Amino acid sequence: MIKIRLDNTICAIATGRGGAIGVIRVSGADSLSICDKIFKPADKRLKFLESKGYSLIYGEIIDNEEILDNVIVSVFRSPLSYTGEDSVEISCHASPYIQQRIIELLIENGASAAMPGEFTQRAFLNGKLDLSQAEAVADLIASESYLAHKVAMNQMKGGFSNEIANIRKQLLHFASMLELELDFGEEDVEFADRKELIIFIEDLLSASKKLTSSFRVGNVIKNGVPVAIIGNPNTGKSTLLNRLVNEEMAIVSDIPGTTRDSIEDVVNLEGIQFRFIDTAGIRKTDDVIENLGINKTIEKIGKAVIIILVADIADGVDNIFNILGEIRERIKDSDKELILALNKVDKANDGDISNIKKLLSVGPGESMIFISAKNGEGVDKLEESLVTSASRFIGSTDNVIVTNARHYEALINVNDSLKRVLQGLSDGLPEDLIAIDLRQAIHYYGTITGEISSDEVLGNIFKNFCIGK
Amino acid sequence: MIKIRLDNTICAIATGRGGAIGVIRVSGADSLSICDKIFKPADKRLKFLESKGYSLIYGEIIDNEEILDNVIVSVFRSPLSYTGEDSVEISCHASPYIQQRIIELLIENGASAAMPGEFTQRAFLNGKLDLSQAEAVADLIASESYLAHKVAMNQMKGGFSNEIANIRKQLLHFASMLELELDFGEEDVEFADRKELIIFIEDLLSASKKLTSSFRVGNVIKNGVPVAIIGNPNTGKSTLLNRLVNEEMAIVSDIPGTTRDSIEDVVNLEGIQFRFIDTAGIRKTDDVIENLGINKTIEKIGKAVIIILVADIADGVDNIFNILGEIRERIKDSDKELILALNKVDKANDGDISNIKKLLSVGPGESMIFISAKNGEGVDKLEESLVTSASRFIGSTDNVIVTNARHYEALINVNDSLKRVLQGLSDGLPEDLIAIDLRQAIHYYGTITGEISSDEVLGNIFKNFCIGK
Repeated sequence: MIKIRLDNTICAIATGRGGAIGVIRVSGADSLSICDKIFKPADKRLKFLESKGYSLIYGEIIDNEEILDNVIVSVFRSPLSYTGEDSVEISCHASPYIQQRIIELLIENGASAAMPGEFTQRAFLNGKLDLSQAEAVADLIASESYLAHKVAMNQMKGGFSNEIANIRKQLLHFASMLELELDFGEEDVEFADRKELIIFIEDLLSASKKLTSSFRVGNVIKNGVPVAIIGNPNTGKSTLLNRLVNEEMAIVSDIPGTTRDSIEDVVNLEGIQFRFIDTAGIRKTDDVIENLGINKTIEKIGKAVIIILVADIADGVDNIFNILGEIRERIKDSDKELILALNKVDKANDGDISNIKKLLSVGPGESMIFISAKNGEGVDKLEESLVTSASRFIGSTDNVIVTNARHYEALINVNDSLKRVLQGLSDGLPEDLIAIDLRQAIHYYGTITGEISSDEVLGNIFKNFCIGK
Repeated sequence: MIKIRLDNTICAIATGRGGAIGVIRVSGADSLSICDKIFKPADKRLKFLESKGYSLIYGEIIDNEEILDNVIVSVFRSPLSYTGEDSVEISCHASPYIQQRIIELLIENGASAAMPGEFTQRAFLNGKLDLSQAEAVADLIASESYLAHKVAMNQMKGGFSNEIANIRKQLLHFASMLELELDFGEEDVEFADRKELIIFIEDLLSASKKLTSSFRVGNVIKNGVPVAIIGNPNTGKSTLLNRLVNEEMAIVSDIPGTTRDSIEDVVNLEGIQFRFIDTAGIRKTDDVIENLGINKTIEKIGKAVIIILVADIADGVDNIFNILGEIRERIKDSDKELILALNKVDKANDGDISNIKKLLSVGPGESMIFISAKNGEGVDKLEESLVTSASRFIGSTDNVIVTNARHYEALINVNDSLKRVLQGLSDGLPEDLIAIDLRQAIHYYGTITGEISSDEVLGNIFKNFCIGK
């Protein structure tokens, strides 16, 4: 772990590889003086070093007296920049050579290569963002669906942080009151109203438990709703998977410039991302040989939030009923959603269909859809059903949802401390012991927003960022 | 082929996938009014629609009354923009969701999705660039080495275009003089001095031939110098290839943010890119079994500019001399460069080495280096030798070098026309026939800079650009 210095000026390529435009970010006290050595404004009267914040300047990057590129430079002045420091963004042609040379020239002239996440870390250290907001930046940039974007944006806007900072302040108040009582030793004073404290902690614990339990949903929103497609061999699982995934790819590539390089078995439906789990087996078997045993299926069910059970209508209602029963048995104590996809409706006979309609019915958290994976019939209904099931699982997204494992851990620790506080109060423990548990809870709250942090914690958080963030 | 309209406003993502920052480009008369519908400046007093050119504005993109993202917007006013039109660049977080939504919002508010290369095509149609410069933009963006960058930059700066425009003007002058003579019919007037014309055309033809012959070098600069690594089985070809390529990768990944996704058997040495051709065979054999026959080797030699012949010192001077002789025989009438890499110097005995030094010598266009592909000894010398050989082949890069196949074709046609003009003048052909050939040459020159172009030609040129360029 490397400790961040704030006295140097850093630079990095901030845009992805490819495209037409590349952006090089420079941040630190010497941003302008370093850029001044390699950048020549087209307007020769202009004094670059005296540029105001929010200036946009056209000119040339000079490399050994030759023009390296024609660029547009944006100047930001401390504290009105992303990092809070003087910053420059150089918008150049996205040539790998040009971008690399600009970085080299900046480094030759005194800049350092930025570490992963260093721009955001500087924003945090300079008080532009708290730690939870800084973490939300990474989530925001990674967001690929409406919901993932929404929770990241909520976190970045700071509602969560403010709430926690607020709670922390109140806890601090109680803790100091308790500690004050200690100073009066023998005298029997109670600055902290015990009843009020108990109610406050009970409310807090219940709110905090809500947050920790939202993590399951947060995880699903952030990484996609895990969907398992299961069923007997030859029921059409791979045809269904391909239809769901390919339609998505067609939609996505309709929007120019947004072609996704490596969509693999992910679809976005009405702002929710679904991730089909362990599809390699399905793809490999090519719907002919199912070489995955029952254990693999159980494993898939375990990982899934939604299970699509694909059955061939021609197998008859008895067989379908049997496999449905097995799956129901396996998920009966969970909140998993089950979609029964009755496939090959295109070549099914009416008797089979009406038999199924007559004899099979679905319970809560279940749905049953007749489809033809081959010609697409009913697949829109199946997609609606996926959205309904996922929405049921996710619930309201207007409340704060925890998506970050570090926050989850901190909140679990908060819960433990608060429980001990309550226990202590009901057991009539001395105020100093109760204060210790309160201080613990305060500490863990503080780690979320970064009011309490260490170089090690920061290092762990930011090392997972990309360079240029 | 779709004809470009200039009356609409276009938008596209201009940066590559990934990274921290994404840039959305908007261009056209309605750029500001469309962006005004989705962008809210943080400074509420600011009237976005009245923004001056080169303004930089911080604010929010609003999607259904929710904040989609915090962005920085750059405003450019016609004609002082890349396309020459009013333009806006939105710098947002590089989330796939956010970028896609911004494009959708722009389209919902009246923008059209840009076609490949449409920004540059508009720059051409609005007279900001000529056609050869527009083509250079694509080359510049694709450039991965010092030399590729240099030739693209030269072309973009317009030296080539100016030269051609200049020649064209003089040819036009001669052509009109000749045509004027026609008007005087029987009268025996000569407005165009024949001697002067012959000298001018001869000079032109010789300059144009230089340009066409530079295309071979241009091609090599643009696509990398093709290098063939050949030699008997088990001489260490794959070890050498890996060493050359891996060192490069290590260097490249030293510079943060420049990790190359799919370097495959390409190295950059002193600004020159080398491309090892047909290395699949070498890699597959893993230096153990050489399953490629002599035909494959001949084919590789044919494609290469530089041939590295790898030989195992332990094979003895006679064997090495024999294979060297075969290769020399095969390339004797070409300007190919040959590097004899005498490998496994780490375990060679001194007798073999001194024998080779005594008995083998190299001629012009050849070099001989003792290396150990295994421990790296001498590989720096080999790299120097690659650079020397390539530099010899490439020659001076200060003159104009043709890198574009379309220009090359036009110049070949120019040469043919000029030759016919000279022949006509020496055969004393009537001025109208000579004028026709002159007009032909003028036409072909004009296609290079785009003074003469058709929708079809433009379509073909710009369809190979990326969206966002």
